[in-house]
Amino acid sequence: MKDYCFGIDVGGTTVKLGLFQTDGKLVDKWEIVSRTENGGQAILPDVAESVLLKMENMKLSMDDIAGIGIGVPGPISADGVVPHTANLGWGYKEVTRELSELTGLPCRGGNDANVAALGEMWKGAASGHRSGVMVTLGTGVGGGIIIDGKILTGANGAGGEIGHIHVDDDVTWTCGCGNQGCLEQVASANGMVRLAKWMIETEGEVRTSLDTDTMSAKDIWDAVKEGDEFAIRVAERFGKYLGLALANIAGTVDPEVFIIGGGVSKAGPVLLDYIQKYYVKYVFRGCRSARFVLATLGNDAGIYGAAKLVLE
Amino acid sequence: MKDYCFGIDVGGTTVKLGLFQTDGKLVDKWEIVSRTENGGQAILPDVAESVLLKMENMKLSMDDIAGIGIGVPGPISADGVVPHTANLGWGYKEVTRELSELTGLPCRGGNDANVAALGEMWKGAASGHRSGVMVTLGTGVGGGIIIDGKILTGANGAGGEIGHIHVDDDVTWTCGCGNQGCLEQVASANGMVRLAKWMIETEGEVRTSLDTDTMSAKDIWDAVKEGDEFAIRVAERFGKYLGLALANIAGTVDPEVFIIGGGVSKAGPVLLDYIQKYYVKYVFRGCRSARFVLATLGNDAGIYGAAKLVLE
Repeated sequence: MKDYCFGIDVGGTTVKLGLFQTDGKLVDKWEIVSRTENGGQAILPDVAESVLLKMENMKLSMDDIAGIGIGVPGPISADGVVPHTANLGWGYKEVTRELSELTGLPCRGGNDANVAALGEMWKGAASGHRSGVMVTLGTGVGGGIIIDGKILTGANGAGGEIGHIHVDDDVTWTCGCGNQGCLEQVASANGMVRLAKWMIETEGEVRTSLDTDTMSAKDIWDAVKEGDEFAIRVAERFGKYLGLALANIAGTVDPEVFIIGGGVSKAGPVLLDYIQKYYVKYVFRGCRSARFVLATLGNDAGIYGAAKLVLE
Repeated sequence: MKDYCFGIDVGGTTVKLGLFQTDGKLVDKWEIVSRTENGGQAILPDVAESVLLKMENMKLSMDDIAGIGIGVPGPISADGVVPHTANLGWGYKEVTRELSELTGLPCRGGNDANVAALGEMWKGAASGHRSGVMVTLGTGVGGGIIIDGKILTGANGAGGEIGHIHVDDDVTWTCGCGNQGCLEQVASANGMVRLAKWMIETEGEVRTSLDTDTMSAKDIWDAVKEGDEFAIRVAERFGKYLGLALANIAGTVDPEVFIIGGGVSKAGPVLLDYIQKYYVKYVFRGCRSARFVLATLGNDAGIYGAAKLVLE
């Protein structure tokens, strides 16, 4: 009986690993270092060794394991091939084939943002829903789209690349992607700070309790909660950008639920209020009833979603 | 052997019907009047009668027919239920169940814009592709999204409602949907004329060969081809709105191909040039290589797509 599976979330610093029952119960989780030197050639062998060691320790045989799901930080094709993943040192790599050969187990792969979305849909904030869009507001803005319980990968692995949706013609600095006016430039943790500084540049002096040289996104949200007038205007503008982007996403894929995660989402429900205010303004009315929820699995979303990949 | 199927496209004035071989060959097509009076109660019985008569004339038995697909102008759920379709007179109606009872054949239903997209993907401009977004630039702006060969219906039947994507904060008049700044307000046949008039209002007098009181979208495109400076600026702005909307759709669903159809698309390849110029500017670079094609099935897209519904 294949009652267990593994969920792996490969990051640039650590690899997170989880052993799951196939009903979704997390049995054990641990981390290993991502050895990105030498083209990252040790990463998959390290993962395989760690998986096989865990099976030995837990007295699990091949017959007990449904497979291994793996999330990677970059595009990956439906058949598990990565063209290039800069922050792991990888060039072209047949990830799932290689990991399958190393372990003797079936493997499936996905992009980390998409896999996190699948995790939140399966056992997190959006459990019980069939379609949802996850937005991760961290250093950047990531996204994952789940339709009928499956990841929308896209023709170029760019399904759910919502951080690069264009939201403002007036942005003058350039995004990491090469464009200007991307959602990520004004709604990520760094982007929110840049947005605040841009508003100060435009307006000249502003009255605020914030230290505008050192402020973080968390500082801005804390100031919002204390009633700081400038911070509230920054939050309004942040909410407008995200509300607009999510409204346009709704007019495209019409999901049941939006899941908001990542570091910035630790600001809590107040964040949803600012987003939903503008979402409702801009969205096609048939999509107004979409739910907005905060992610609940935190850094474990990736291993949950990866595990779910092999159960489809 | 079930070698045949029917594709039905119900409109507010006429119902188009097609008899297809299951390999996609159109054997016969014809039309009947849409009797929308009395809550449109005669429409499905008329369709059923016409289908059964065609089978009799063609000496086809129930065993020859895989089923009937039907496209309707409004939201329809995955199990074939319409909540309300104003321009057919329908309130709540279990469309596929009713048509199945009337004919004795399996039935499947879809929204007309989505079904047209499926038709173009199957046997039209995007044949051979697995994922595509169709944009219909007619009286309004309709859309349909196909992912892995299937319609993306959405939680509220609003998948692909791209005509109501918000593209401009400065639009001052109100869309049929109740919002302001929708793509449909500036990129449909009527919207393009309204856009031109808005530009004249904003700019004061403009130099143009167009009769600005009576101009149609076709007139504007004809003037573009003749080098009219004002018409070219209208086309640039139209292209910017559509290019921006399609770029943001690409950052969401990352399709292989965009199919542009509807009356406005009769302007021809020049239309694609204006759209792609801005698409390339705004889109996430991983999605730049998406193909742009003009629809080829015209008014038959609906019957092709409806037929394909029962072959999935």
